Order: sequence, then structure tokens, then C-alpha cells
Amino acid sequence: MEVTRKNFKEVLPEVDKAIKECCFIAIDGEFSGLDAANHSHIAPFDTHEERYGKVKKSCSDFLMFQVGICTFKYNQKTERYEARPFNFYVFPRPHSRVAPDLRFLCQASSIDFLASQGFNFNKVFLEGISYLTPEQEGNLRDVLQQKHREVSLFSSPAFTTPGTDEQAGVTKGPIHIPDEQKEFIRKNCEFIQNFMDELVKDTLNLPPSNGFQRKLLYQTIRQKFTGVHLETKTGEKKERYIVVTRVKSEDELKKKEKEKQAAEIAEIDDAVGFTQVIKMISQSGKLLLGHNMLLDIIHILHQFYYPLPNGQEKWNENHTISYEDFKAMTHCAFPRIVDTKLMGSMNPFKEKIPSTGLGDLQKFLEFPPFCKPEVDLAEGFSSYNTPDQHHEAGFDAYLTGLCYISMTNYLGSLQKNASGRVSPTSSLLDPYVNKLFLMRMADAPYIDLTGPDLKLKREHVFNISFPKEWKNEDLNQLFSPFGNIQISWLNDTSAYVSLYRKEEAKNVMKTLCKDNTVYQIIRYNDHKTGNSANLRKRPMSAPDCLPPSKKQKSLNVDAAPFVSRSITPPLSDIIAPEVPSYADALKKSVKNGQSNKSKNKEVGDHGDVKMFEEPENWG
Amino acid sequence: MEVTRKNFKEVLPEVDKAIKECCFIAIDGEFSGLDAANHSHIAPFDTHEERYGKVKKSCSDFLMFQVGICTFKYNQKTERYEARPFNFYVFPRPHSRVAPDLRFLCQASSIDFLASQGFNFNKVFLEGISYLTPEQEGNLRDVLQQKHREVSLFSSPAFTTPGTDEQAGVTKGPIHIPDEQKEFIRKNCEFIQNFMDELVKDTLNLPPSNGFQRKLLYQTIRQKFTGVHLETKTGEKKERYIVVTRVKSEDELKKKEKEKQAAEIAEIDDAVGFTQVIKMISQSGKLLLGHNMLLDIIHILHQFYYPLPNGQEKWNENHTISYEDFKAMTHCAFPRIVDTKLMGSMNPFKEKIPSTGLGDLQKFLEFPPFCKPEVDLAEGFSSYNTPDQHHEAGFDAYLTGLCYISMTNYLGSLQKNASGRVSPTSSLLDPYVNKLFLMRMADAPYIDLTGPDLKLKREHVFNISFPKEWKNEDLNQLFSPFGNIQISWLNDTSAYVSLYRKEEAKNVMKTLCKDNTVYQIIRYNDHKTGNSANLRKRPMSAPDCLPPSKKQKSLNVDAAPFVSRSITPPLSDIIAPEVPSYADALKKSVKNGQSNKSKNKEVGDHGDVKMFEEPENWG
Repeated sequence: MEVTRKNFKEVLPEVDKAIKECCFIAIDGEFSGLDAANHSHIAPFDTHEERYGKVKKSCSDFLMFQVGICTFKYNQKTERYEARPFNFYVFPRPHSRVAPDLRFLCQASSIDFLASQGFNFNKVFLEGISYLTPEQEGNLRDVLQQKHREVSLFSSPAFTTPGTDEQAGVTKGPIHIPDEQKEFIRKNCEFIQNFMDELVKDTLNLPPSNGFQRKLLYQTIRQKFTGVHLETKTGEKKERYIVVTRVKSEDELKKKEKEKQAAEIAEIDDAVGFTQVIKMISQSGKLLLGHNMLLDIIHILHQFYYPLPNGQEKWNENHTISYEDFKAMTHCAFPRIVDTKLMGSMNPFKEKIPSTGLGDLQKFLEFPPFCKPEVDLAEGFSSYNTPDQHHEAGFDAYLTGLCYISMTNYLGSLQKNASGRVSPTSSLLDPYVNKLFLMRMADAPYIDLTGPDLKLKREHVFNISFPKEWKNEDLNQLFSPFGNIQISWLNDTSAYVSLYRKEEAKNVMKTLCKDNTVYQIIRYNDHKTGNSANLRKRPMSAPDCLPPSKKQKSLNVDAAPFVSRSITPPLSDIIAPEVPSYADALKKSVKNGQSNKSKNKEVGDHGDVKMFEEPENWG
Repeated sequence: MEVTRKNFKEVLPEVDKAIKECCFIAIDGEFSGLDAANHSHIAPFDTHEERYGKVKKSCSDFLMFQVGICTFKYNQKTERYEARPFNFYVFPRPHSRVAPDLRFLCQASSIDFLASQGFNFNKVFLEGISYLTPEQEGNLRDVLQQKHREVSLFSSPAFTTPGTDEQAGVTKGPIHIPDEQKEFIRKNCEFIQNFMDELVKDTLNLPPSNGFQRKLLYQTIRQKFTGVHLETKTGEKKERYIVVTRVKSEDELKKKEKEKQAAEIAEIDDAVGFTQVIKMISQSGKLLLGHNMLLDIIHILHQFYYPLPNGQEKWNENHTISYEDFKAMTHCAFPRIVDTKLMGSMNPFKEKIPSTGLGDLQKFLEFPPFCKPEVDLAEGFSSYNTPDQHHEAGFDAYLTGLCYISMTNYLGSLQKNASGRVSPTSSLLDPYVNKLFLMRMADAPYIDLTGPDLKLKREHVFNISFPKEWKNEDLNQLFSPFGNIQISWLNDTSAYVSLYRKEEAKNVMKTLCKDNTVYQIIRYNDHKTGNSANLRKRPMSAPDCLPPSKKQKSLNVDAAPFVSRSITPPLSDIIAPEVPSYADALKKSVKNGQSNKSKNKEVGDHGDVKMFEEPENWG
């Protein structure tokens, strides 16, 4: 169901009911961009904090302008789910001249992509639902309250008109009316005189005027007429005009003022808009699903909950605190989250699912060993029976729910006393709950929202600095005594190198860390902590030191499909990630009595477990 | 005429012809926002450099996404003008994966305003014409040329496929095909085998695939098939797929490669897009009109000509150089410019025109003493006969041209031997040429592109610092011995104060600049140059020093229509600006033999000349 500011008020009770009655909720967002700078690339050897910092910095100036929310209610009678996908258009329309006037970033490629998918930008900008963070709402209410309090201190606000001290300052007389404005002022006074004489209508809209003209009008009308209340309004086309209202007494004037104040309060209520939906979801405490949902979560918190620290700042300033803040805020807002991309990338699904892109995943999960989930669209939600509406947020949220149902049904079917449905509070879900998928991080593939993150074991990773002429082959050759390597470039003259044969790690420093002037090598951990005397010493550049291989770097402009330095193959292709298998995690959580609360998550080396898929956007 | 990427190629020759044949060209732009931060407000006591810096910083991250260009050709036979208004939608669509992927800012209130005027954002994003700056174009061509050169060094590019050193590094073998991908690879090989066997079609599009799948496919196809050329393409919905082409010989392969290279070059030609139109205008050297065109000029230079220094930097770093650069660049790109807002604000028009907003100005200029200009829309340009299309760039450019014709006709009619038409090169225009209007700068109302700006005479302006409790009334009271003042707030504790009675200036420092601990006062010029021993000394805050007036600051939330500290009345209401009258300027330019080339523009105090209008967006 499409929801815009045209039907939002009418639909809101239905949204409320849907959230209250459902078992779980899926969410998805569409954004005005993804990556604020081309060089904020995420890399496989990021730490959790680094990754969060990079993603936040990179995304938080963009706007989430479409939010899909799909509730799933289980019908005990039919033993089927009823889905209610809502597709909300949201836009931070400034509801008044004192409302926040947001600036947001757009990324040309993202806008182009959405446009090519038929995304309706006109609907966003013209009919998008307003929103305010609770803080913005509070500020606006405070300001309004104080304004109303001040007005009540003056006996007759209309006769003093707003801003009197500015306009009728002690030493400043009234403004001189320039000749060219006299006719305009005269005509308007004529309108008012007729209006006052005729006694037919209660209010009169004067013609649109500019700020200077209104200033002159306020001044003149105040001098010439009594018993009128003046107010400036903004029309549909943004034109501003004065509304003149006839008032008989001071009481009536006060009543008018009261009405005006009530309207101003109602205006703020309206402006809170979509934030109410996020509050409802948060307050429901229900299981919230998303697919690759880190970005969605960051945007939801940032736009509707509490602004995350400014994305412009360096990500590593106080990163520990703000990363932990983010985890705590997320858990506080949404106490139970499942990321279906992470779930599909973990056992027992990983081996059975070749691709976890949302569309692919949903299709694979309709065929054995999985079952097509039994879901009906509730009455009034028929639009998603047509097949292909990818990249509409409501549809993607719906698909996310379908994936979740298939996967949980499969988990249930593996149990001894298999029943049809797995409850959203079932401990079967424990290995997947409150974890956010991280792209291209093979040995640390998720953020754990409720405990310490997986400890990174990167003893087999080294930082190396070298002349800018070096390329992959030179590194491959240098490290050839230790077997295959993975390279993650940091810049033209340094990279991380990871060994496939971890047991060789101890030999690297012995063999390569000789006193040489061509390159410098230090351990990953030393590099991260800055613990090296030589850390800042720059390597010499050619021709003083020739790279081991002299073959020219080949230029790969086309970038497709497997070039580019910054996009290296994921660790998972080479090195088995050290994450717990499904069975391990489940065992652990059962043993601990509660899931994921163990202080130290360092786990054994399950070298044979390959839980995570290759990235989709590779190359 | 609406121009999008759908008809751009077809219309371009017509645009070229229209520019070549016309007398003058009017231009107008629509932007994604105007003001990057709420607090970058322009102020009446800015210097020229400051003002330029503020405007540039504030606008240059936004996008000009609609450009109106209207050419006016004079028909000697009919003695009427023929107008050709083109309304271009432009968007920096990344034409390929190596093209620049621009990030641009949007301002919610601007977007909301345009949406309310019926602006079609979908058309911008879906059908906007591409553009590249000459530098971007050059870089792309260089990169492409080098790529083509490199390909020619290898004998058979298809057999080595792009990115070989990355993919088939010395120590890295081929990638292992994961089980779940085997079926996908097998099917694709089957497609290719059939295609090769059947000999019916010349090319085969494989199904869409992700980057990893394409990597596996390239590797497998290369092993299994000979005589095929592979290329990755992007479909309408942004899906990526491999195109397989049958090739019989190495010669044919080379021919295919040549074709591919030609297509890549053509792609850059296309991407240059709208920049060609700006080049045509620039190369024509014809008179360029705009209405309040500083923003238009900044955006045109920044987007299509040469990026102006990063708007994020502090405006006062090297501001002298970059401001002069801007003037030189503008004059180089557009050697003859007239800003119709400035023209309408100067004599002999000022006294006869109450408002110089574009719509108002155009209407006023249809009535005596002016004449409705005789303009026809050329064939195929009928759409602007409907009345109200304000804020469509093409329409606004058209109106700008109408204003210019009315005003020049009027200038002509004032001459002794009045002929119907004033040539765009007439010296009658000299007082108005190559000057850009500056909003809310009463004593320095324009940027002079071809000479030194008007020297600012601000001996009657003072900077004062005071406790944060102070407000307008306190300043009015302090300065009351010297008559009326204008106040321009800098922040909570300082402001510029300008005297209406300039002759009192000499008394201010004597009277007020005593040794007091409550406020500090220095001359404007000293403040600008930092030439004061006490400049950095902060005044004490209350309650140590009580303000002269104790009346509470009143809170003006509604802001309408005449409140707000930052928006002070323009000098023109109080102080007659020191700018040359039309007659003076004309005399001067005639006397000098050429216009506006005098080194020092300081002019006498024409206290009775009030050339500039009140700002439109006041309050």
C-alpha cells in the first residue's frame, strides 16, 4: 500500500493495528546515495569500529526517502501468514519558516539507478510524509510555547503586530513609503475599506506581496484601521499574502489568537509524521527483519531517532565510544533484529544458497530443500501480486519477510518434533539475532549488537610499504615462499597482505623483515596500534630501488569485471573464516542458558567452515 | 522547447543555428538549493570579496539541473524579434563506470518550492542531458587513449581478457568454482556451445550475472572456447551481462576491437552533452542576459567550464585571488553580460519600477512610459504563449529577454534621433554591461567584471561588541546622539552600526570610545583590517555590566514579516547609496572613450540618488 502525505493520517491507525497484531516486521529503505566519496571504500581488513565509522560517514548525509514496512500476521486458522506491505514516501518538508530546512546529499549514480527502475521522485518531493526527530519536535514545541506565553503577556497582539521592537524602535520612525509603492498600498487599503464596509465576509485575503510590501502594509493598516486582525499566510504556490480578519472586541481577538495557536500546535503534530511509525515499531518490541540492514538501521536512527554524530568528522575520533553508542542505541530502539542476508550466509543455509542478493535468495528459498512460504497479502494490499517491483522499498520488505519465513520453516523442519512454524522468539533463531551483516569482511562478517564483537585473529596479516611502482605481482613474488596471499591495497605505496597458509606467519618477519631499503613490513596488529619504530619511515622510490618484477602495471579502465586494486577477492575464497558454525553457535547459546552473552567470543579455528558468500557487487 | 537526452542530439544543430543567428541570448537556471547552511547569510556590510565568497561557498555544492536559454533574433523585415526559448534538463549521469559520479546537495525548502511549482524531477533524473567539464572530458579521453594503446600492444585482447595480471597472477591459479555456482556455469557454457554450433546469430547475450559469476564465466569460457570475443555490457535496468561474439580470425577480432573502441569514443562525445551548448554561447561572444545572474554564472562556470575552488574552504583564504579569478573567468567565458535586475535597479528605470522581481519587472515594462516589446515566438516554440510558467528556466530566460528589450527600447527613445532598436553593442548599454547584481548591498550593489569594484566608503560604519543581553534598542539608545542608525548583527555580541547622518561619524569615536568595560567600538575599516589593539578583547558579560535598556528581548518565532536579526533593512531605505547615477556613468564612459576602464571608481557623494531597490525576500 502506497502511503504519502495525502493518505498518511487516514492510514496511520491501520499501520498501528498491523504492527500491534503482527508476529514480526520487515523493513527496507531507498536512499539518495550510498557513498559520499569514491575513496571511502570498505576493505576486508577493517576492524568493526572502522567499518561502522566508514559506513556511517559515507552514508549519513544522504536521505532515506522511501521506507518499506511489511508486517506479517500468523493466521492460526488458515495456518498462513498475512502480509501488509506499506510503502512510505518520506521527505523532510519544512512545515513552517522555523522548521528545520535539511540539506541532503545525492549521488548521481544512485539517483540514475533508481530512475532507471522507475522510481517516482516527484512523488517523494511533492507528496513525501514529513518527519522530525524527537529532539527537533521538542525544540519546536518549546519555541512555540514560549512564543504563545509572550503573546499572552501583551493585551492585544494584533494591535502590536509581531516584531514591534524591531520595527518601531525608540529612535526609528515609521518607514517612508516609496512613490512606486504608493499605488499598491492605496489599492490594498481600498480592498480593506470595502471589506469592512460590506460586512459580508469574515476574512479577506490580500493579493500576494513581497516582504517589503507586507512591512509597509502592516504599518499602514495598523494606522488606518481598527478592529482587524492580520496574519501572513503562504499559499500553494509559496506566494505569501496577508489575511485580514474582522474582529469586534478584544475577546474575539483573543479567541482568534487561541485558534491560531491551536493551529500552530496541530502543525507540529503533522510535522512529526513518519517518525510516529518508527516509534510504533520501536515500542512494539517486535522482531524486526531487514536484508543487509546496516545502512537501513543507520538511516533510521539518524533521521527519525537521534542524529548519529556528524558524518563529516574523522571516523577515528572517539570511534570506540560512538561505535558502542550506535550498538546500544540500535538495541534500545529495536530489541530484536534479524538480518536475512547474514542468516542466509550462515549455516545451515550457506551451503545450499549460491547467492544471498535479496531477489536470488527469495527465489532459491522457494525450492527444495526449502519450501515456498504460505503467505497471503491482506485485503487492500493486492498490488504486490504483480511479479517484479524490486527496489520499491515496500516490495523489498515483503520479500525479506518471505525469506525469513522460508528459512525459519527450514530450521523448524530440522528439529525432532517438527511443527510448521517457528516463533519469532524461538531459541532456534539465537545464532542470528541482533547481528548486522558486514559486506566483504570474511573473518568478521557481522556487528554483534548485544555483546563484544568477534575477536579478530589477524596474526597472518601484514602491512607492507613499498615504492609506488610496485603492483600485485611484486607482492606475490615477494611472498611466494609462504604460498598464496590476499592483497588489500591501502594506497599506492602500502597494502595489507594476508597469508593463506597461516602457519607460515611466524616465518614472514624472520625472512622478509631484514634491513632493506626497498620495502618495510610490520605485523597487522602493530600497524593498527601504531606500535612500530619504523612506521612512519617512508620507503624510497624508484629508480633507487627497483621492484622485483619490472613488468608494467597494466591499465584497466573498463574495470569490468575483475580488475581494480581496491576491490580484492574476499578472504572467503582463500581463507576459511574463523566464525562459529551454526551448530557451534547453537550449542554455545544453549549451554550458556541465554544466547550471545558470553564475554569472549574467540572461537576455535574452524578452518573447514565457509560460512560467508562472495560479495555481490564485485568488480 | 523542451530538450532532454531523448532529443538533444537532434535539437543541437538548431540550438547552434539559433545562437549563431541571434542578437543576444538570455539564460536562467533552476537549482537543487541555494544556501548550504542557514548561517551563511549575506549581510549589507560585506565587501565584494566577502560577498562573492559567501555566495560561492553557499551555492556550489548544489546542482543546476534545468537551464533555460532563449535566443532573440531581430527580423529586419517585420521589425520584430523572434524568440527561441530552449528549456534544457541536465543531469550528471555517469555514462560509464569510469565517468565521474557526482555528489550534489539538495535543500529541502528549495526542492519543496520547485515541487509546488510543478517541477518535473523525474524528467531531470531520467532524461537529463549529460555534461562534462573540459577537464573531465580531457581526462576521460586520455585514459581511454592509453587503454586503447595498451590493448594494441597485446596481439589478441579477447584471449587475454581485461585485467589479466590481476586475475592470473604468477602465484595464483584459477579460481575454484564453488558447488553452488557449477550449475550456473554449466548452463552458460551450454548456451555458448549451442550458439557456436548453430551459426545463426553473430552475438549472444548471456543472462545477467553478478561480478563473481562473470569472473568465473570469463575464466571458464576462455578455457573451453576459442574464436569468441567477450564483453560485459549494462542493460536498461542496470543489470550486467556478458556478450559473446563469434570471431573467425585474429583480423576479425581486431576489427571488433576497433569497433568497440570507436563506440567508447562516441560514448565520451555523448557524455560531453550540454557542455557543448555553453561552449557555443561562449564562442559566439554574444551579449548574454540574466536576471539576478550571479548564481547562474557561478553554477555555469562550476558545472560546465572549470570548477570554482572548493566551496567548503573558508571564504577568506586567498579570497582576493580567487575572487579576481572568478571575475576574469567570467569575462573570458562571456565577454558581454547584462544583468536585467541590476539594469532595472539603476537610473533611468529605478524611479519608474516599484519591484524588480522578474515577473513584476516584465509586467511593469509593458506599460507607459515603457512599451510592450514586439516579440514573436519562432515556429516550433509555441509553448510559452500560455501565461504562467514561472520558475521554468526556459520561460524565465524568455521573460528576461523581454525585460531587456523593453528597457533598451526605452533608452533608445530617450535619444535625440530615436530609432526603434538599440543594438546589443550600443554604448547606451555601457553603464550596465559586465556588472552582476548583488542582493542587499546598498552601497556596493554590483560586481564589476572588467575593472576594480566600487570603492566602499564606510567611514560612518562602526563595529561594536557588547554583552549578549543587548538588543536593537540598546544600540539605538547608545547611538541616539547621532541620529538614526542601521544595525547589521554579526553574532550575539557584536554588530555593525551605520549612521544615517554621515557627518556625525567623526563624533562617534570621540563620544563613545571612552574607557568603558561594557562595550567596545571600533571603526569599520579598522575592524576589517584587524587594526585595533582591543579587537580581540571580549566585552564583559552581564550581570557585571548592565545594558542601557533592560527591556527583555522579545522572541519572534513567526519571523513574518519584519523580524529576525540577520535581516536588517537595506541601507537604501536610510542612506542614499554612493553609486554613480546613470547620467554620471554614461558621461564617464563617454569621456574615457571606453566604458568602465577607469582605475579608480570612487565617485562623488550623490546623496540624492537612490538607485537600488529593496530586497524582495525580506522578512
